[in-house]
Amino acid sequence: MRILLVGAGGVGGAFGAIAARRDFYEAIVVADYDLAKAERAAEADARFSAAQVDASSADAVAALCREHRITHVMNAVDPVFDMPVFEGALAAGADYLDMAMSLSRPHPETPYETPGVKLGDEQFAAAAQWEEAGRLALVGIGVEPGLSDVFARYAADHLFAEIDELGTRDGANLVVRDEDGHEIFAPSFSMWTTIEECLNPPIVWEDGAWHTTAPFSEPEVFDFPEGIGPVECVNVEHEEVLLMPRWVECRRATFKYGLGEEMINVLRVLHTLGLDSTEKVRVKGVEVSPRDVVAAVLPDPATIGPRMTGKTCAGLWVTGTGKDADGNPTGPRSTYLYHVVANEWTMREYGHQCVVWQTAVNPVVALELLARGTWSGTGVLGPEAFDAVPFLELLTEYGSPWGIQEVSG
Amino acid sequence: MRILLVGAGGVGGAFGAIAARRDFYEAIVVADYDLAKAERAAEADARFSAAQVDASSADAVAALCREHRITHVMNAVDPVFDMPVFEGALAAGADYLDMAMSLSRPHPETPYETPGVKLGDEQFAAAAQWEEAGRLALVGIGVEPGLSDVFARYAADHLFAEIDELGTRDGANLVVRDEDGHEIFAPSFSMWTTIEECLNPPIVWEDGAWHTTAPFSEPEVFDFPEGIGPVECVNVEHEEVLLMPRWVECRRATFKYGLGEEMINVLRVLHTLGLDSTEKVRVKGVEVSPRDVVAAVLPDPATIGPRMTGKTCAGLWVTGTGKDADGNPTGPRSTYLYHVVANEWTMREYGHQCVVWQTAVNPVVALELLARGTWSGTGVLGPEAFDAVPFLELLTEYGSPWGIQEVSG
Repeated sequence: MRILLVGAGGVGGAFGAIAARRDFYEAIVVADYDLAKAERAAEADARFSAAQVDASSADAVAALCREHRITHVMNAVDPVFDMPVFEGALAAGADYLDMAMSLSRPHPETPYETPGVKLGDEQFAAAAQWEEAGRLALVGIGVEPGLSDVFARYAADHLFAEIDELGTRDGANLVVRDEDGHEIFAPSFSMWTTIEECLNPPIVWEDGAWHTTAPFSEPEVFDFPEGIGPVECVNVEHEEVLLMPRWVECRRATFKYGLGEEMINVLRVLHTLGLDSTEKVRVKGVEVSPRDVVAAVLPDPATIGPRMTGKTCAGLWVTGTGKDADGNPTGPRSTYLYHVVANEWTMREYGHQCVVWQTAVNPVVALELLARGTWSGTGVLGPEAFDAVPFLELLTEYGSPWGIQEVSG
Repeated sequence: MRILLVGAGGVGGAFGAIAARRDFYEAIVVADYDLAKAERAAEADARFSAAQVDASSADAVAALCREHRITHVMNAVDPVFDMPVFEGALAAGADYLDMAMSLSRPHPETPYETPGVKLGDEQFAAAAQWEEAGRLALVGIGVEPGLSDVFARYAADHLFAEIDELGTRDGANLVVRDEDGHEIFAPSFSMWTTIEECLNPPIVWEDGAWHTTAPFSEPEVFDFPEGIGPVECVNVEHEEVLLMPRWVECRRATFKYGLGEEMINVLRVLHTLGLDSTEKVRVKGVEVSPRDVVAAVLPDPATIGPRMTGKTCAGLWVTGTGKDADGNPTGPRSTYLYHVVANEWTMREYGHQCVVWQTAVNPVVALELLARGTWSGTGVLGPEAFDAVPFLELLTEYGSPWGIQEVSG
């Protein structure tokens, strides 16, 4: 296996640090628009090399694949570049993995009721081409989407006779402090992307169809495990809702993000004032996008790791009818399958903050399963299309076990 | 009387429109840094002329006074220019009026406990010079400070034997709509100034001394009259707290601004994110001050008048021991003296929105009392230094009566 890692940002860097400890591949070429960034990430291991790439060009991606005899393209750039990287891989005859699917566009008339172009639509439209070429595009194999989707398959195969809802629930108790030890407002993910994700119309799968809602809909306090505790969660547009119902039977699929009251309030205020806008405004002789200004005044998420404490949790809350080991229905069941990572641990072990580390570990596990032949397939497939058990076993072997608990009330 | 109006912005424009209907003066010279703006305001009356002025230069103000044989300088520019306009008037031998006092500077070590340089300190420091010159500087004669201070003097002279608290309370139920009729977030006053005012340490007079508090302290819901109803009010730094105790005996003086929950939340979020900062940040190759960006994305307060509905209320809540007509104590009393203006009325009658109109009407009334000789004095004086009755009578004659009601609970 020869891997092309496109993107040496937060997640790409953590991917390199995790992959450096494994021996299932021959080489990793780390490519970034910024060659110096790629070179820094490539220092992680002797099997790594660095290259410059323009991820907006499918031709450039394909050329790089051919030059380095790439077998697997690992996409770790902004999803805005999903399609050129995806197309470049196919053109060069490589398999492809990503952690976020091609972007959505809201319905022009009824954005908060009807889906427009959905997440991943452009990628699934190319499924036949991938099948014909005998190549695999494994889409959405980060932590969410990714591990959450593996949990869905596990729940369907081993825990539930019938599933009512597959509800991804993401929450954290991360705190960032300034030099003086005071808590500060510092999102652990790009504020630009958080605004984009949270103000897009959230999507829900229900009774055989997708529909959208208004931002921040259906608020719910979910009690996260391992000391994180209750966090306010709201509907957010996310890939799981598009992926899970394609392979796992369920009446409903949702994604709720534990933004917490403060972040929800901040996003609402930014939207009310128009500070979420990406259209440039004229300010005393210069032109700027208000959203860029918001991102610029906040600490860079890449730099907050050492000043952050707490844990982040990704997981799937499944409700429905449970089953016993023989597959016989056992009555109503409500179970949360989850993965918790502590920032102190990822910083100490890998030198990367927990949110990017938790995202990056999953595609490394998936690539190792593909290298072993434990996972195989062709076409455009989500993580649900593969057996969950070997994935969860290998994740535990990586030192980062998953958990399961029954949800009461 | 020959008046120099410095500043043809929102309040200056309304001042001109109100003064145009009165005959107590001979001429008004409208001066602005932007001559075109001054010329537009000067169209209101044949006795008006326009001039260009740099309000940051005391010499320029004095020269303009001499050129036009000015007797009274009416300062209607940003308080950042208070001192040069104030000094220019004295240098030219003119009397002076303003609606906001010289600026404060927070205490360097304990900003939320101890006052640093207080509002008006620089002006009061020059009081002896004004007295010696036989000239009057009537400071803080807008609506708040201004009419609120007139109410304090009225309460002490006619309603109360002993005053516990002089509590200025300002609230409104103004709503601004977009072209489609949807309510929008559009402050009726400069957002830049609102941020400045609300994030400065609020000041309180108590038991013979001034102290400061943290922003948004002592939240209280005050029930405003004439259909406005309950509004959340918080301590804000304001001139009344500095003026009233100098002339009116009271145990406590406060200013609480009915910002309402939404505006308080917006200001808190802007502060948390650092978007209130006036220091420039680098954003994709350009440099901007975040606060300027916030102001730029909101509608210009000068343009919202026609799309605004509702009323604004300025007033003074006085508590203490009441007295009868003979001056004998009558027991505990709690009274709100107030002035309510409806935006529909000011737009129809004067073509100016209610918040700026309500500010501008008071200095016109004061100048008319000075022209008649009803009010006279030398030195640096607040509105409390003069008899309140003729002021309140003349305000009513202007078509804008005040009100009084007992406060229960």
